[in-house]
Amino acid sequence: MSVGVVGATGYTGGELCRLLLNHPQVNRILPTARGHEQFQRLHSNLMGSDLEFLTFDDIKRQAEELDVVFFCTPSGEAMRNAPWFLERGIRVIDVSADFRFSDPNVYQQVYGSPHAAPELLPKAVYGVTELNRASIAKAQLIANPGCYVITAILALTPLLRAAWADLDAPLHISAVNGTTGAGNKPKRSIMHAEVLNSMLPYSMEGHRHGPELETHLAAEAGRSLAVDFNTAHGNFARGIYLQANLAVHPTMREGMTRERVLALLTDFYGQGGEKEFFIRVNTFPKMGGINSKEYDVYPSVADVTGSNFCHIGADYDAHRGIIKLLSVTDNLVKGAAGSAIQNMNVMFGLDETAALQTYGL
Amino acid sequence: MSVGVVGATGYTGGELCRLLLNHPQVNRILPTARGHEQFQRLHSNLMGSDLEFLTFDDIKRQAEELDVVFFCTPSGEAMRNAPWFLERGIRVIDVSADFRFSDPNVYQQVYGSPHAAPELLPKAVYGVTELNRASIAKAQLIANPGCYVITAILALTPLLRAAWADLDAPLHISAVNGTTGAGNKPKRSIMHAEVLNSMLPYSMEGHRHGPELETHLAAEAGRSLAVDFNTAHGNFARGIYLQANLAVHPTMREGMTRERVLALLTDFYGQGGEKEFFIRVNTFPKMGGINSKEYDVYPSVADVTGSNFCHIGADYDAHRGIIKLLSVTDNLVKGAAGSAIQNMNVMFGLDETAALQTYGL
Amino acid sequence: MSVGVVGATGYTGGELCRLLLNHPQVNRILPTARGHEQFQRLHSNLMGSDLEFLTFDDIKRQAEELDVVFFCTPSGEAMRNAPWFLERGIRVIDVSADFRFSDPNVYQQVYGSPHAAPELLPKAVYGVTELNRASIAKAQLIANPGCYVITAILALTPLLRAAWADLDAPLHISAVNGTTGAGNKPKRSIMHAEVLNSMLPYSMEGHRHGPELETHLAAEAGRSLAVDFNTAHGNFARGIYLQANLAVHPTMREGMTRERVLALLTDFYGQGGEKEFFIRVNTFPKMGGINSKEYDVYPSVADVTGSNFCHIGADYDAHRGIIKLLSVTDNLVKGAAGSAIQNMNVMFGLDETAALQTYGL
Amino acid sequence: MSVGVVGATGYTGGELCRLLLNHPQVNRILPTARGHEQFQRLHSNLMGSDLEFLTFDDIKRQAEELDVVFFCTPSGEAMRNAPWFLERGIRVIDVSADFRFSDPNVYQQVYGSPHAAPELLPKAVYGVTELNRASIAKAQLIANPGCYVITAILALTPLLRAAWADLDAPLHISAVNGTTGAGNKPKRSIMHAEVLNSMLPYSMEGHRHGPELETHLAAEAGRSLAVDFNTAHGNFARGIYLQANLAVHPTMREGMTRERVLALLTDFYGQGGEKEFFIRVNTFPKMGGINSKEYDVYPSVADVTGSNFCHIGADYDAHRGIIKLLSVTDNLVKGAAGSAIQNMNVMFGLDETAALQTYGL
Repeated sequence: MSVGVVGATGYTGGELCRLLLNHPQVNRILPTARGHEQFQRLHSNLMGSDLEFLTFDDIKRQAEELDVVFFCTPSGEAMRNAPWFLERGIRVIDVSADFRFSDPNVYQQVYGSPHAAPELLPKAVYGVTELNRASIAKAQLIANPGCYVITAILALTPLLRAAWADLDAPLHISAVNGTTGAGNKPKRSIMHAEVLNSMLPYSMEGHRHGPELETHLAAEAGRSLAVDFNTAHGNFARGIYLQANLAVHPTMREGMTRERVLALLTDFYGQGGEKEFFIRVNTFPKMGGINSKEYDVYPSVADVTGSNFCHIGADYDAHRGIIKLLSVTDNLVKGAAGSAIQNMNVMFGLDETAALQTYGL
Repeated sequence: MSVGVVGATGYTGGELCRLLLNHPQVNRILPTARGHEQFQRLHSNLMGSDLEFLTFDDIKRQAEELDVVFFCTPSGEAMRNAPWFLERGIRVIDVSADFRFSDPNVYQQVYGSPHAAPELLPKAVYGVTELNRASIAKAQLIANPGCYVITAILALTPLLRAAWADLDAPLHISAVNGTTGAGNKPKRSIMHAEVLNSMLPYSMEGHRHGPELETHLAAEAGRSLAVDFNTAHGNFARGIYLQANLAVHPTMREGMTRERVLALLTDFYGQGGEKEFFIRVNTFPKMGGINSKEYDVYPSVADVTGSNFCHIGADYDAHRGIIKLLSVTDNLVKGAAGSAIQNMNVMFGLDETAALQTYGL
Repeated sequence: MSVGVVGATGYTGGELCRLLLNHPQVNRILPTARGHEQFQRLHSNLMGSDLEFLTFDDIKRQAEELDVVFFCTPSGEAMRNAPWFLERGIRVIDVSADFRFSDPNVYQQVYGSPHAAPELLPKAVYGVTELNRASIAKAQLIANPGCYVITAILALTPLLRAAWADLDAPLHISAVNGTTGAGNKPKRSIMHAEVLNSMLPYSMEGHRHGPELETHLAAEAGRSLAVDFNTAHGNFARGIYLQANLAVHPTMREGMTRERVLALLTDFYGQGGEKEFFIRVNTFPKMGGINSKEYDVYPSVADVTGSNFCHIGADYDAHRGIIKLLSVTDNLVKGAAGSAIQNMNVMFGLDETAALQTYGL
Repeated sequence: MSVGVVGATGYTGGELCRLLLNHPQVNRILPTARGHEQFQRLHSNLMGSDLEFLTFDDIKRQAEELDVVFFCTPSGEAMRNAPWFLERGIRVIDVSADFRFSDPNVYQQVYGSPHAAPELLPKAVYGVTELNRASIAKAQLIANPGCYVITAILALTPLLRAAWADLDAPLHISAVNGTTGAGNKPKRSIMHAEVLNSMLPYSMEGHRHGPELETHLAAEAGRSLAVDFNTAHGNFARGIYLQANLAVHPTMREGMTRERVLALLTDFYGQGGEKEFFIRVNTFPKMGGINSKEYDVYPSVADVTGSNFCHIGADYDAHRGIIKLLSVTDNLVKGAAGSAIQNMNVMFGLDETAALQTYGL
């Protein structure tokens, strides 16, 4: 296969190249950049590979060889350029946000400008592989989900489908992203000395991925819902630590326990990767009591670093009737490049785990 | 003044000694330890000071010289030993949790054993200096608040007193503490390689400081309330990053803005330290729109590291009617040793900022 | 293949299992532990894999199925147990230090106890794959090099073989290791809050790997030499940052430049992985002058994290006649588990990069 | 006192303001900036203080009130502007590098442009307070030393004055600086995600502070010498970790031990601050043998963070005849702003520790 990576100067584009270099079926990777950057100086972890930046026109000229194009571009690029590739039978996986809403008005509200290809929106398949595999297999155009959203939706869907939550109150989601999530353009706030002993909250008045979250969680719940969504960058480079708290529906509180929540999750995903290879539910039992600080009964961001895994854990505050889910991913892998490749694998009938089998560090 | 620091082997006891070494009115510091540790090898930042560990009996023998004793001991020690000192006219500041509930039954519920000195509970003054200065000035026994609780209560009290929150729903508090908050006893989960690229959630089913939070916030609100309280250790050594979200009371939503919340906070605390020296409200205006990532309009943990300051910021999610408060402190200073000294200063009629004037790093 | 991993409770053993899980020819991994630890709770990044700890006796009972055994044990275990496996035709790769000296007296001097299997020492092949491939292919017993030593030897060998250094003066090597290098037994000094904003020097009077360095570097140089070897743990979990400074031999100073050093290295290893896949020489040119702080002209630890690559860079202090080499590896991969698997691949005639193709994060 | 801080937008200028805010004799601080930055938004740790940026002309207009001016400007500014202040009887402390060489030719060689005020060079006093106190007390113009240089010179001077080193070979100095040492201008290489799990070497062909080191160390040694000087940024924000290795002079090797080195250092500086308050020698005895990893027998960067202290430790590699010194400082305090204030205190006959008494975190 020959694969285009449009906008490969950022962390996500670099990560796509890194993973694709180990893909057994991919023999050509064509990364593009606008400026005059040197691929291997920018992505020095890939030093010695034979990748070089091309221009966007370069890969258009080689279109007949291309099987699929990934867009890792800022908002607006993919929707203007996807049609050109789709018309030529080249599949498109958009890792940006251009095709995540089926309604162009919602896109306009959230991103502030009209959608350039509204006719494609109904054809775009939202790419949470585990929840949507059949449609992805047939899709020409994938809207790859946002890193926060996929991390949340994987944890919450089993509970929303089972209707365990009281959705008259907002869901509460607090997520901490690594600083790669802030991009690789130098800014004072994300310099090393500024973040090192700190955490950086942002977009507290309403993050752009809030509506994406609400839209796709509502679809799983089968009803409207609101999300109180809170984001920050933490003192780590990669990874999302996402906690989702939901009030248990009054009719479900009787007999609710941590164990029941974990059982629901393992019923849905399997426990040892036998149902869903990339989803692992942490069911380690708690030995001590309150304040026993058994950290390993919850998932750890570090455990999924560098991998396409999503680890999910849970607990239950019985006193207040609140289920707490913890979901961790690598924001650049399962949160972006990895799930994009997972979708590519499904679209092309390949082994779904190709290029993605590495366990976390 | 001569000052005892009972249980000075931990981070809080060491921090008390560090700060007291710069206190103009304190000329003797008597730290105690149970084992055979060497003070300056354990607290190597104080290398070359003349402090040495004494036994608890040692400082009892020197009781007549003592003006005040701080307890930095595990639960249960202070309540057994405070009476001995109080009877001799020596004031006690308990940095542990023994005197934080006026009701001994609540103590027993939360800590699992009966209270050893229930007769002292009504006399203990809860030591949030900014909210309770007059009582502290007259107190013989201070219950110094937990690090999470003081960080939350300073941010929330202005809003609770103003009755802006809809308290029929739980308040949502998510707090990330530095790893000094986990103590200095070696445990696998808090080793460097385990935490470095991660965050460690704990006590998700209900943290022991949850009831302390609910009790003291309810007192400020003048009504009962519930707190959905979530804690983790982050990849920093010192500091608490605490976010408190509260649904705005329906009657208050009209016209609610970030600016109104900030104005309420600055009315309460002042802005430049003129009312409350240690409280600084971040009122920097937001220039960009949504997703503009203006990190500096919110407080930063790093800004208060090493200091007794509490920086508070706020934002408003108008779409969902949620006020978001951010409050940051150094867990070992304002969250423990610093506020304890601040209380000591008030109790003894000293300059309230003595030994505490250093700005954050 | 069936593979035993003796002593799989530490970071190296866990890493071996992590990498072997992705090895196309390995279908059974048998990790051992002495205590009652749960494999997946200890190595939670491998949660959901089917690995469980066995006892050492367990794997002895399954010896006929075993192809190779890795020892990740403390000093002394491998030399006592390797003969049992070798006698049964099972190859042994010792990741501990037991077989790194051909002379049992040197072993005794450095490790303080007599060697238990001196007859095996001449048969053990020192496992720097890139320098010793032919012997490794025929070996039954591999002495896998120490993480510092392999990182140093890969950088220095081209210069030593070319006799560019003045070896009458000691070589100066300063290396900073991640904290995984300190093991996963809880100790106060390597707790998160202790290391986070610091660096921990250790064994300054002479590190145990000093003699290993001197022995194997001397073999490459063809003469005796001394190494001034300095070690510390840095504030990162994985990786070795190693700088080796050598005085240029007076006869070679004329015309010496950074470029000449880089050319020698690329002649030796190739530049793009075509000669040696795992060695990449950073030859990016320097644009600015002194103090221009072009960090990317030198290798970065982060670039090799999680990978089996060794990136090497160089510079030349013309004023003082000193060549400076920088070599970075992941201490758990190229420094231990990865090079051990690379050796296994060579011993069994497999693709040398099997299970090791992932690029650094 | 009224104090000007010219160039207060960087980390050093901000740190000077932070420390001066706690100086009992300083009642006016006048920080300058060129652009339109807001002081409290830039230095948000000082939020709520009444400091605001002035222009350089502003403080010239208020010259009669000024007692002293600190220059925290890039090379070249101080030498052009110092005369104006000196002529008006205002003392100048240059925290930049403009007055560190007495010979204008050396300045030109190192910094690449001619010196603008060569007539002032003989009058400038090099500001290592502990070594040069008497001259500093009488000085009008202080050349405050570079952060690496002061950290090295404090450790090495006792040994150089005692002539213990074999100076025919170069001294070897390897130093790791926090990322605040790289300034606060955004650059890709010092973004959080780039440094977090790494170390950044720089200027390996010869750092600009190398000649400063050689000049001032030679003055202490009473003979010429060469320094093999190596620098990197580490994954911490503040602090210098500096190791200096020196070959023991052959005549001194007999009977040389770690203890003898430590005794020389404590003879020189005292041990508990009684001779030199800011210098603390770590003399903790080593209990274990080689590889015992007793980290606390060496100084720790974290121990001096936020303070004006310099902790010094030592060891001896008897096998190779090499004394190893470890010296740690906070690069922004003892390495810059703190020692500048210490010099100011001496110049004005104030308590030398005023504003600087805080112990490290």
